[in-house]
Amino acid sequence: MMPGTQVQRARINLNKLMLNTDNKILVVGSIAYDSVETSAGKNSEALGGSAAYFALSASYFSRPSIIAIVGSDFDKAHLNMFKSRNIDLTGLKIKDGKTFRWAGKYDPNNLNHRETISTDLNVFEDFMPNLKTEHKTSSILFLANIQPDLQMEVLKQTDTKPNIVAMDSMNIWIQHNKDDLLRLITKVDIIFLDESELRQLTGIHNIVDASKAITSLGPKVAVIKKGEYGLLMNSVNIDNSFSLFACPALPIDSVLDPTGAGDSFAGGFMGYLASTGKDLSKICSQDLRKAAIYGTIMGSFTVQGFSVDRLKLVTDDEIQGRYKDFEKLTTIS
Amino acid sequence: MMPGTQVQRARINLNKLMLNTDNKILVVGSIAYDSVETSAGKNSEALGGSAAYFALSASYFSRPSIIAIVGSDFDKAHLNMFKSRNIDLTGLKIKDGKTFRWAGKYDPNNLNHRETISTDLNVFEDFMPNLKTEHKTSSILFLANIQPDLQMEVLKQTDTKPNIVAMDSMNIWIQHNKDDLLRLITKVDIIFLDESELRQLTGIHNIVDASKAITSLGPKVAVIKKGEYGLLMNSVNIDNSFSLFACPALPIDSVLDPTGAGDSFAGGFMGYLASTGKDLSKICSQDLRKAAIYGTIMGSFTVQGFSVDRLKLVTDDEIQGRYKDFEKLTTIS
Repeated sequence: MMPGTQVQRARINLNKLMLNTDNKILVVGSIAYDSVETSAGKNSEALGGSAAYFALSASYFSRPSIIAIVGSDFDKAHLNMFKSRNIDLTGLKIKDGKTFRWAGKYDPNNLNHRETISTDLNVFEDFMPNLKTEHKTSSILFLANIQPDLQMEVLKQTDTKPNIVAMDSMNIWIQHNKDDLLRLITKVDIIFLDESELRQLTGIHNIVDASKAITSLGPKVAVIKKGEYGLLMNSVNIDNSFSLFACPALPIDSVLDPTGAGDSFAGGFMGYLASTGKDLSKICSQDLRKAAIYGTIMGSFTVQGFSVDRLKLVTDDEIQGRYKDFEKLTTIS
Repeated sequence: MMPGTQVQRARINLNKLMLNTDNKILVVGSIAYDSVETSAGKNSEALGGSAAYFALSASYFSRPSIIAIVGSDFDKAHLNMFKSRNIDLTGLKIKDGKTFRWAGKYDPNNLNHRETISTDLNVFEDFMPNLKTEHKTSSILFLANIQPDLQMEVLKQTDTKPNIVAMDSMNIWIQHNKDDLLRLITKVDIIFLDESELRQLTGIHNIVDASKAITSLGPKVAVIKKGEYGLLMNSVNIDNSFSLFACPALPIDSVLDPTGAGDSFAGGFMGYLASTGKDLSKICSQDLRKAAIYGTIMGSFTVQGFSVDRLKLVTDDEIQGRYKDFEKLTTIS
């Protein structure tokens, strides 16, 4: 298929989803080649990384710009694929050397558990983000899972505080860079964390209490991801009371590879919020809940393929179809 | 407080919940003294057992009759407590000897995991249910978690097939009495299983596929309990298509003791179905979903106390309050 055809089809789909390219999302994160083993099979050196999954997922709702670094070995076909999804790559640095590699293996009995087999930072080792002028005024900033000091650096380089700043993180930063991480958390509006990461960070076992401990640091919204068990979202209301929202994941017949599900979730969530065109102060509980469902839907596509194989081929009709499926699955009457 | 006062209060509450004592629920199961250790503390020789939790929970919606056995050491205060909840004990056999004892310890990091420390069957060892005439025509029969041949025996003793037959089971019967269990499953309408039990029984990891394997054996409804992660319900429609319903558990600030949560869930579920007064053929998807939510609510009370401490003191207003909380927690808009 010619790239042009793909762009055209993507645009038609995006229009139906009320694509809003005015509210641009800047995402800083990793782009990697992942080698993954799951109960469904093995996949070697396939496109991955937090920024890749996030941007592809968000591209169905808004226009993402990626701030990341890859090596000279990065496949041009992958650059073209991002472009075909209308993703801005002017902030992507291509440096002599090898692209970041990650290898992991999933517990066949519990897809929420995985073991990292190897991490080769390669060109990512001395990555120093340097925002271009046009990226300094993005209205939405997503700090995908990379080391907290790099996340902070990108936030500092924005000219004015973006309308919404959101972040993700992971266990290794909680373990080794906790102070940096806590400083960053005070400056963001929305935080995404896995259930186990939330417990590790707060030292509190009860999820509701732990999520309140996080919002007390500054964020207005804490989204606690539970993988195949769905999510709990705690949002602080204007009167400082809390609203809790919980929803299951969409049951998926065959999960091939859970890698990137959390980043795709965040991409759908933030992409939907961007598409509303609303300022943070105008975003209501219903917007956040819909965002959580669109996030859930985008994650459900990602796990149905290795790498971004399924995610990159989603259509608008499929997204809307799964939204209806989700309503059928969860509506009481 | 005088027992009479308690009865009166209970009745007032029950009326508000549209108590329906016409559609009686017969439950066969265990009544035990449990010793439990959780991260919240220890509790020694406190009232427990599948029939105890089920009947107390169902008593807020319908009139349960217990078929079970206890020893001569069984505390009269516990008999009175059951009676104060309008539970029929004419099928409860009191035999010389000691009441069934169970002791267990919960993983402080995962309340869905527990270890059995000891099981002393005592009078339960040669328990042979023998239904009285008035129990042989119960419209709803719940076969709570005991060995499958006893569950089958009770089912055989009913004069006509009850309007709804439901069952629960657990890992030890799947391991040691699988043939008996599979024979029983073909004869029930609704089956309750934990996620791990479902996988153990079917050998299928994917929950949706595994639940379909169970309904293909006969049951019209498979309710897969996931503890703190809520549930998935798979019900077979009249055209043999499947309806899936998923919902989270109510987030609970302080979980003291998860023992009996599953039995309380089943009690609320079946109690609500009984209160509708509908035949199995008239029960629709909405009835089943509401039943799942009332079950979730009753389970949420149970975990807030050791033994039946919290469950026995629930009020109708509290149940309706948590129903509203559940709607707020899960409604999209």
